[in-house]
Amino acid sequence: MNYPSTLLQNAVCEMSRLPGIGQKTALRLVLHLLRQESGEVETLARSLVELRRGVHYCRICHNLCDSDLCDICAKPSRDKSTVCVVENIQDVMAIENTQQYNGVYHVLGGVISPMDGIGPGDLTIENLVERVREGGISEVILALSPTMEGDTTNFYIYRKLQGLSVKVSVIARGIAQNDELQYADEVTLGRALAGRIPFKA
Amino acid sequence: MNYPSTLLQNAVCEMSRLPGIGQKTALRLVLHLLRQESGEVETLARSLVELRRGVHYCRICHNLCDSDLCDICAKPSRDKSTVCVVENIQDVMAIENTQQYNGVYHVLGGVISPMDGIGPGDLTIENLVERVREGGISEVILALSPTMEGDTTNFYIYRKLQGLSVKVSVIARGIAQNDELQYADEVTLGRALAGRIPFKA
Repeated sequence: MNYPSTLLQNAVCEMSRLPGIGQKTALRLVLHLLRQESGEVETLARSLVELRRGVHYCRICHNLCDSDLCDICAKPSRDKSTVCVVENIQDVMAIENTQQYNGVYHVLGGVISPMDGIGPGDLTIENLVERVREGGISEVILALSPTMEGDTTNFYIYRKLQGLSVKVSVIARGIAQNDELQYADEVTLGRALAGRIPFKA
Repeated sequence: MNYPSTLLQNAVCEMSRLPGIGQKTALRLVLHLLRQESGEVETLARSLVELRRGVHYCRICHNLCDSDLCDICAKPSRDKSTVCVVENIQDVMAIENTQQYNGVYHVLGGVISPMDGIGPGDLTIENLVERVREGGISEVILALSPTMEGDTTNFYIYRKLQGLSVKVSVIARGIAQNDELQYADEVTLGRALAGRIPFKA
């Protein structure tokens, strides 16, 4: 497409790098921004840069946070002996929204997916094993999406934790196979958490 | 939704102000940016701020441009006696893509739409009349989307130009009624331009 302005072209080009945003959508968004106050555009731009620069990951659970420790790990009332293993922070937010879980989390940062070149070494599995080895954890709940990659990762973690005195459970399959965990409704997700069963390979 | 980080919450909140971007999409986009290099996020942010700050509108046709005059108005080979009236810059780009038009444009910045509170005074209609009054223009082509608002605007401009020695034509209705002009395919749009007829109220 021929853009009438280089500045416009740059902005559309940068915007269309975002996943799921094509050229026409990018143009629509950019022209919307043009109609906004200059200050509003700067606020948007600043919020993105500040997030990217200032982002922290919790040193215990690898959740996103504003400092060294996330709110969940820092809260004394949370049950530190129960660790829920999730793929990403959207999943933490989804489980928090059920208001049925009072333990802590471990964010893997993905699942094992050889097709995408993601192996166990790219995830925080070793940190999880270390956390369990340090003691004080009685149960690890595997709460990954019930896909092939999720199942593979569940099995890998289960094998890694074998021999350590920790109960390994997996959330109930109330969630339909191949559904994405982060889009499950709160009732289904809450029930899946409540109905967890011991992991059987 | 409860976000684990204030910086994340700010970024998602700003992002979800964009039209058609909900909270979940905003979160997905922001988390994508988090996985990019810091420099790339800064480039995106800078491109938006620079566009908003540095944007110019052509003093003749009100098209977006980088300086005082747009590329089309500045080009000596373009036929300055034919002016194509369009709603917005997406429409200029769509017509340019047909490669069947060698005249110049006049960007209205919208169409008359009392439902949205847009009257003739909010558009660049007066500037168009002034352009025609200054002379050198033999034909004004009305190329607005064939919607009720577009038709109303066509009629308004036609009345405003009556008495001035200029031919007023309207693009052929090869484009289906109520379709958005900017999404028409190039052949349809090119034919509509070629098959224009004298405006009859």
